[in-house]
Amino acid sequence: MLLAFVSTPDAGPASLILVLAAVLAAAKLGGHLAERLGQPAVLGELLGGVLLGNLDLVGLGWFRALTGNLALAGLAELGVVLLLFEVGLESTIQDMKQVGARALVVAMLGVAMPWILGFGVGVLMLPGHSVYAHLYLGAVLTATSVGITARVLRDLGRSQSAEARIILGAAVIDDVLGLIILAVTASLIQAANVGGEVSAAAILLVLVKAAAFLLGALWLGALVSPRLFSFTARLKGTGLLLATALVFCFGLAAGAGAIGLAPIVGAYAAGLILERVHYREFADRGEHDLEELIRPVSSVLVPVFFVLMGLKVELAGMFDPTHLGLAALLVVAAIIGKQVCGLGVLGTKLDKLSIGIGMIPRGEVGLIFANIGLGLVVHGERIIDQTLFSTIVFMVLVTTVVTPPALKWSLGRSRA
Amino acid sequence: MLLAFVSTPDAGPASLILVLAAVLAAAKLGGHLAERLGQPAVLGELLGGVLLGNLDLVGLGWFRALTGNLALAGLAELGVVLLLFEVGLESTIQDMKQVGARALVVAMLGVAMPWILGFGVGVLMLPGHSVYAHLYLGAVLTATSVGITARVLRDLGRSQSAEARIILGAAVIDDVLGLIILAVTASLIQAANVGGEVSAAAILLVLVKAAAFLLGALWLGALVSPRLFSFTARLKGTGLLLATALVFCFGLAAGAGAIGLAPIVGAYAAGLILERVHYREFADRGEHDLEELIRPVSSVLVPVFFVLMGLKVELAGMFDPTHLGLAALLVVAAIIGKQVCGLGVLGTKLDKLSIGIGMIPRGEVGLIFANIGLGLVVHGERIIDQTLFSTIVFMVLVTTVVTPPALKWSLGRSRA
Repeated sequence: MLLAFVSTPDAGPASLILVLAAVLAAAKLGGHLAERLGQPAVLGELLGGVLLGNLDLVGLGWFRALTGNLALAGLAELGVVLLLFEVGLESTIQDMKQVGARALVVAMLGVAMPWILGFGVGVLMLPGHSVYAHLYLGAVLTATSVGITARVLRDLGRSQSAEARIILGAAVIDDVLGLIILAVTASLIQAANVGGEVSAAAILLVLVKAAAFLLGALWLGALVSPRLFSFTARLKGTGLLLATALVFCFGLAAGAGAIGLAPIVGAYAAGLILERVHYREFADRGEHDLEELIRPVSSVLVPVFFVLMGLKVELAGMFDPTHLGLAALLVVAAIIGKQVCGLGVLGTKLDKLSIGIGMIPRGEVGLIFANIGLGLVVHGERIIDQTLFSTIVFMVLVTTVVTPPALKWSLGRSRA
Repeated sequence: MLLAFVSTPDAGPASLILVLAAVLAAAKLGGHLAERLGQPAVLGELLGGVLLGNLDLVGLGWFRALTGNLALAGLAELGVVLLLFEVGLESTIQDMKQVGARALVVAMLGVAMPWILGFGVGVLMLPGHSVYAHLYLGAVLTATSVGITARVLRDLGRSQSAEARIILGAAVIDDVLGLIILAVTASLIQAANVGGEVSAAAILLVLVKAAAFLLGALWLGALVSPRLFSFTARLKGTGLLLATALVFCFGLAAGAGAIGLAPIVGAYAAGLILERVHYREFADRGEHDLEELIRPVSSVLVPVFFVLMGLKVELAGMFDPTHLGLAALLVVAAIIGKQVCGLGVLGTKLDKLSIGIGMIPRGEVGLIFANIGLGLVVHGERIIDQTLFSTIVFMVLVTTVVTPPALKWSLGRSRA
């Protein structure tokens, strides 16, 4: 097996404390080493996780077993939600409107090309699989994981550049498009399995839900947010500004999750909506700035997400020659496929290469897709079998690990 | 059933986000109402949890089901660990030495009397149960939950008074004594079940482990702490001061857990050990103070613990007349039993009543005891059956809920 998730029963809260101590230590030591080598800290956190996870090669399997710890997974999910909220806070809806049309074009190019390439890799390398498996393999390559890129851009102090806004905007749109593609492909496969046809109404429903959520969240959120903070500013107690902001962020993230979108989409929308003027009553009485209050919380939880992603990598099976061809082609398709994104900003002075590179990581979104594929069956054949799943995880890992240094190089080049 | 835990399968990380939003909102609204009524915020957080949990009476069972959510339990455990760490940070080892001898006397009185009274209640009200059940019922009453009292003292701005140090010191010693009693009683019961005898060596082992951990942690921690912070001050990256402090705290908490003590004992010890001078290199370069960095994190996690405790209360069965007599006597034994603690400071000007009241709450420690009792069997008879368990939970709840207003009143009286 190329890579795999290893699940164990949850080890309970007492061990969670030890886990967090180990994860924080690994994150900060890894981040330090990465920065010493001139790389973003997030790369060190990922590789710190890879190192800990693969201690099972020398008989220490405790860290690998953590990938099955539900409480740790919950903390990691909170971490990535907080990260997207923070990134969203750095921009306003106005900023996004300026890049909106371009981001949409970038996103659509970045979804179409990887899907075509992924389908081609399937036809070429998996002739024995059905056309549905090929279609699904393409779909897995479509979505961009905004988490890694957002973190790299922030580590480099570039998260407010026009390129960053296009990448993050396109990644959010990608997420929506990707989920629509996933829903459509999955419907096709389920219909094929029972010999029926895919329902156009079901496809339309997914489309309408996603558009309605995003537009609704931006419109309603902008209406609700000032009133919410104005209300809580009158309550007695401590920590009210941070608590209100988190309730608002978590509420939108859970809303996105409830209609089948990724919670990070809602968290990013919450950050975009929330502006300093909404909580000026807190600021007026001398409380800390919201960014300053969130930073300690996110400095603990965000690294948990990246270390956990690293922990899931099994180096042992990674060089199994039978899978290397498929894995290599899939990685190439994933990387090349997103480079057409630069075409979406042709005719501008924007850094086309950085936009293409910023769209590469598949991260947790790719993992979610692969996981759903494990459960799809046509005429008794699993669409994504264990080997294909491991290959997809390998692709996710490589796209995630190559992005930080590549983006750092590319942004440095454009600045020079 | 008087009260009960309801367990459901874990609802997963996406729902954890919604859960946290609901819990934070309940905590802050409850806290506000309590403060409006002149009570500590923690009482409002507990009762906010009680209210949400009992929405199942009107058909909304979602909140009650949260008591089985592992990720939420993990966050709550982190919250109570952080709370004890913060409380420990406010005192130094020197402060503790000044109250140490008195705290030991207070703790021993506060363990002996509740045990005797609890045994008596068992003989009186449960004549059909074995002597082991009576002994165990006494043992359940011994430990003090320092979490509630620490929080009330902090809400009232009194956590650095001499009374507070004696209460917190005695509660930590209580925890150790209580765990020894638990281990001894459980050994007795297990030996009785197989017809053998309790091993003196096993009792000695528990005693030695606990003493060795506490003394070892205080001695080794004071040696390690300055070196640890001096090392991490030279690393590159952000959030290093907070991460180092949390790794130190979590490390000691996990160490306490590993040898069978409550993790909060280790967290409190970590806070006692850590002093500003250890991390002066961070302070010298203008970073925020550690207390200021921890506060946003704890302001999110600490309320999770108290709301979750409230969620576990089932009001529906609470007025079942068959259990009311036993429940009422147990509550009286729990409260009266700790009032002898004031005798430990006879001859001083210290506020004896406040010390006695501060020792009342059984909180999570009582729950842990009751839970272990559910698994103990002598000759086919369960030591703690479901009804007795519910009664114990009721006692824990009442001792927890009466303490904040009683302590506030008592401290206000002594100040006047």
